[in-house]
Amino acid sequence: MPAAPDAIMGLVEGKDQQELCREVLAIGDTMDVLRGKWTVEVLTAIVCGNTHFKEILASIHGLSDKVLAERLRTMQDDRLIVRCEYPTPYYSLTNHGRDLFALVYRMSTWGLAHRRLMIG
Amino acid sequence: MPAAPDAIMGLVEGKDQQELCREVLAIGDTMDVLRGKWTVEVLTAIVCGNTHFKEILASIHGLSDKVLAERLRTMQDDRLIVRCEYPTPYYSLTNHGRDLFALVYRMSTWGLAHRRLMIG
Repeated sequence: MPAAPDAIMGLVEGKDQQELCREVLAIGDTMDVLRGKWTVEVLTAIVCGNTHFKEILASIHGLSDKVLAERLRTMQDDRLIVRCEYPTPYYSLTNHGRDLFALVYRMSTWGLAHRRLMIG
Repeated sequence: MPAAPDAIMGLVEGKDQQELCREVLAIGDTMDVLRGKWTVEVLTAIVCGNTHFKEILASIHGLSDKVLAERLRTMQDDRLIVRCEYPTPYYSLTNHGRDLFALVYRMSTWGLAHRRLMIG
């Protein structure tokens, strides 16, 4: 899944310092969103079909309902999810949230390779 | 650049809870590596051709030589970079480090879109 790093190296090599700085800052913005505790877990829960509050809560071990309520509000503010009211309240990923999840999901392959490297 | 989130959603939908848990843990492993202060900046510096210690130091604002030396050691332990000795000491990304940088670099597009969304 990671693949084609050389294509990305090529992209970087052609850029000036200012543009690269802007990109590194943007990477930081993404990291800030991802650092929010439980964000990755909540995104995954919703993607997996646990879209109601109680379903999300039940699917994530160690998460309290108070913390989940706060987290869902932050994720709505960050435009990652929307709360839908019909037929009963549930949460859905926005396109922006889906794009983020796609990025995050690619991390699992690297993380597995990393664990193998560190153990091996 | 993010693109094809639906393909990724499809991948997730077919998986059982145990496999998904393993993947979420692996995402956490990747995040742990990325959370290391200056890691993203040092990867970017090396990709941009600042491969000698002094070049890396000069290219990252606010980084001391002591902290950089520690960070380079940690990144070597994490198999992200190697120290080469010839003709003069310099640092190079491993394939594992390049794969990580490719992941990280994709975050810049999302981060830029996020900033626009938050400001707009």
